Amino acid sequence: MKKKTFNLAIVGLGNIGSYFYKHLTYNKDQIEKKTNTNINIKYLSARNKSKKRKISIPKSKWIKNYLDVTKKKDVDIIIELIGGSEGPAKKLVFNGIKNRKHIVTANKSLISKYGNELSKLAESNKVNLEFEAAVAGGVPIIRVLKEGLITNKINKIYGILNGTSNYILSKMSESKLNFNEVLLNAKKLGYAESNPKSDLNGEDAKSKIQILSSLAFNCFINKSDINVEGIQSVDQIDIQNAKTLGYKIKHLAIAELKENKLIQSVHTCMIKKNSYIANINGVLNAVIIEGKPIGNYTMQGEGAGPGPTTSALISDICSILRGNIKLPFTIADKNRKKIKTMNFSQQYFSSYIRLDVLDKAGVLSGITKILSKNHISVKRLIQNQFRSKKFASIIIISHQSKNSNITKAISELSNKKFIINKPKFFRIEV
Amino acid sequence: MKKKTFNLAIVGLGNIGSYFYKHLTYNKDQIEKKTNTNINIKYLSARNKSKKRKISIPKSKWIKNYLDVTKKKDVDIIIELIGGSEGPAKKLVFNGIKNRKHIVTANKSLISKYGNELSKLAESNKVNLEFEAAVAGGVPIIRVLKEGLITNKINKIYGILNGTSNYILSKMSESKLNFNEVLLNAKKLGYAESNPKSDLNGEDAKSKIQILSSLAFNCFINKSDINVEGIQSVDQIDIQNAKTLGYKIKHLAIAELKENKLIQSVHTCMIKKNSYIANINGVLNAVIIEGKPIGNYTMQGEGAGPGPTTSALISDICSILRGNIKLPFTIADKNRKKIKTMNFSQQYFSSYIRLDVLDKAGVLSGITKILSKNHISVKRLIQNQFRSKKFASIIIISHQSKNSNITKAISELSNKKFIINKPKFFRIEV
Repeated sequence: MKKKTFNLAIVGLGNIGSYFYKHLTYNKDQIEKKTNTNINIKYLSARNKSKKRKISIPKSKWIKNYLDVTKKKDVDIIIELIGGSEGPAKKLVFNGIKNRKHIVTANKSLISKYGNELSKLAESNKVNLEFEAAVAGGVPIIRVLKEGLITNKINKIYGILNGTSNYILSKMSESKLNFNEVLLNAKKLGYAESNPKSDLNGEDAKSKIQILSSLAFNCFINKSDINVEGIQSVDQIDIQNAKTLGYKIKHLAIAELKENKLIQSVHTCMIKKNSYIANINGVLNAVIIEGKPIGNYTMQGEGAGPGPTTSALISDICSILRGNIKLPFTIADKNRKKIKTMNFSQQYFSSYIRLDVLDKAGVLSGITKILSKNHISVKRLIQNQFRSKKFASIIIISHQSKNSNITKAISELSNKKFIINKPKFFRIEV
Repeated sequence: MKKKTFNLAIVGLGNIGSYFYKHLTYNKDQIEKKTNTNINIKYLSARNKSKKRKISIPKSKWIKNYLDVTKKKDVDIIIELIGGSEGPAKKLVFNGIKNRKHIVTANKSLISKYGNELSKLAESNKVNLEFEAAVAGGVPIIRVLKEGLITNKINKIYGILNGTSNYILSKMSESKLNFNEVLLNAKKLGYAESNPKSDLNGEDAKSKIQILSSLAFNCFINKSDINVEGIQSVDQIDIQNAKTLGYKIKHLAIAELKENKLIQSVHTCMIKKNSYIANINGVLNAVIIEGKPIGNYTMQGEGAGPGPTTSALISDICSILRGNIKLPFTIADKNRKKIKTMNFSQQYFSSYIRLDVLDKAGVLSGITKILSKNHISVKRLIQNQFRSKKFASIIIISHQSKNSNITKAISELSNKKFIINKPKFFRIEV
C-alpha cells in the first residue's frame, strides 16, 4: 500500500500552539508509523511572528497572512489554535472547509456557536472537522461518544468541565481561604487566566456541555433555555456549611433528557461528599454518562493545558490521517434532531439557602411566610448567631421545590430589611 | 455516495450473544445512519439450536456447522462469542481471517494467547480484528488507547479488571461476611459464574492486562515473567486490619515500564483508603493511565455483563462499517517491539504480613530473626491477643523490601512450629 502524504498548517502559536508544534515534530515518526502516512508540518502562522516563544519558527514555514493557508494547494489539514468564536478563528475555519481543507480545532466557543453550520458545510465539502480538544482535553470524551459508545441510548451526561472553577472550589475547601485569595493564587500558578471571567461565570462550561449534549442525544447544538451560573457567589462559609451538612460544593454542567425534552444547565451545587463527582479535585475534569446498554460510565483527567490539549489534537489528526471522512457529529445533517427544550425554571430541586439576618423577633416568621407563599417547604433549618450577637445566619434546606418558586422567594427575601447580605442559594444534586 | 452492504454472522448465542443479537436487531437503523451502510444479520450459529433462549432464531439464518460462516461469500463480518482460547473459538477466528472475514470478538483468552499471530494474519489478509469487548466491556479502553491517546508515551497502566473479584472484596468490606459466604451470594446474584476459578485466581485479569500493556507500550503481547495472584487468600480479619491501618484491599492488574523493561503483575494489595482506586466498588472496573503529554487519566464503568459487552461489540462493528482497515494493535507487525521483562521477584514493596502464632516467650524474637536474615526491616508491628489468650495475631508493616526476600521469609515462617495458620502477606501499593 503506497503511503499518502499529508501537509499540515498550524495557525495560532501561543502557549498551546507552541507546545503542540514541538510535540508533533518530536513524535512525527510514531504518528507516521501508526497511520501509515507521511506528514509534513508545512506552514505556521500566528498574529505576531516575533513574540517570545519556546520554539523557533523556521523561515520556510512562516505564513504572514493566516488566511492564505486556506487557499494553498499544498495544505490538507489546518489546525486552528487561535480561539474565540468570531474574527480570525471563524474566518479561518469557514474558509478552510469551503476550500476543502480538513480542520482540527480546540475552539469550544466556535464549535458551540457555529458547530451546526460548520458541520453541514464539512459534510457537503466532504472534509473532516474534528474538535476533541474543545472539551476536556485530557479526557477523550468526544471520540468516546462518537465511537466507543456509538448507539448507546444516553439519557444524561454531566460532569465537571471547567478546571479553573474546580481548582478554586477545591482550594477553598482545603485551605479555608476566601474566593478572591484563592483566585489570586490560581492566577499566579497558571490555573486561572489573567482574565478568568468566562471560566468563573459558567460560559466556558456552557459551550462544552452544548457540544456534548449534541453528540450524546444526536441533536443539533441547542442554544436556548440554558441555565448558566458560575462560582462567584460561593463564600467560604458556604463551603464550611456544606461540610457540616455532608456535602461538597461543585460546579457542574448537566444535560439531560426528560420526556424527550432537553434540559441543559451549568450551575454550582451541593452534592453528597462521598459521591464520585464530589471527590474530583483540583484542575481535573470528569464526565459521567448514563446510558443503555452501557450503564453508568465515567472518565476523569486533566481538562486543559498544553499536554492534554495536544494529546487530543494529535488523536484528531490521526483520525484524519487514517483516511476516511467522518461526519463531525457522526450523523448527517438531515438526520440530526431538532430537540425541544424544557425550561429550567420548571425543574424541581431541594436547595440550600443561606440568609444573613438581623437577630430580632419576627425575622423567622417573616422568612417562613415568604417561603410558604412560594410553596417551599422546609426540611431542615439551622440558626447560628454571629459573634457580634446582633446578627445571625439562617441555613435552610428545602424539600423539592420548583426552581422558579425558589428564585422568586430569594428575590422577595432580598428586599426585606432584616436581610443584611445578599441571600445565597445552591441546588442540591442527587 | 452509494451505501455499502455488510453481512454479519454471529457465532455463540449464550447470555451475551442473545442480548447482543436482540440489541443489534433493535438498533439496526441507527447504526446504518451513523455509518452510512446497510447491515444484514445474515447467519446465526451456536452449539445447541434448541437451548432455551430469550430470543427465537429465524430458520433462514441458522447455520448448523459454525465453521461454514468462514467460507460463505455472503459473510463480511464474523462476531465470535463462543469463548475460550482453544477449540471452536480459535478455529473460527483463524479460519475467518484466512478467508478474509473481519472479526469482532469478546474473547480475552484467545486474544491474550494468540493475539500476536492473529494480528499478523489479519494484517496480511487486510481485514479488521477488533476486541474492545475483551477488556472491561463498559469502558472503551481499547479504542481510547488505539485512538484517543495515540502517540501518548505511556509508562504505566493499571486498574481493577475483574468485576467478580472486586465485588467480593467490596462486599467483604461492607458486610463483615467471610470469603465463602460472599462468594455464595455473588453466585446467586449472577456476579460470579458457577465456576469462578479464573476470576478468583487472577487468570482473567492477567489476560486483560497483557492485552492492555501490549497496546500501551506498542509491543507484542508478552507472556513471560507475569506474577499472577488471586483473591482467595483474603480473610475478613485482613479486611478489618486494612481499615484500621487506613487501607483498603483491592485486586489490581498492573503493567509498567521500568528502565525500558516491562513488569506485569496481577495481585491483591492494600491501597490508601482515600485513593481513587480504593473507592471503585462492586462490579465496577477502572483503568488508570499515566502518560505524556496527557498526565493521569482514568476511566471507570461496568466491566462485564450483556449490556456493557454489547456496547463494546457494536462500537467495534461500527469501526469496521466505516470502511478502512485498521491494524489490530495500531502498528504493523514489523514495528511492534519485542520488549524485555523485568522479573517481578526483584521488585521492592512495603508489605503487610499477618502471622497467627502461639502466644509464648521467644516467638517474637523467632519472627524478627527470620525477617532480619532476609533483609526485611519492620516499620510497624501490632500484636493482638486472640480471645482464647493462647494465641495471638501479629501484624507487621515492612519497609520497602525485595519481593523475593519477602516470599522467602514467609515460606521460612510457614515452617515454624509457633505459626498456627498459613501466614498472609499483601503488598502495599502507593
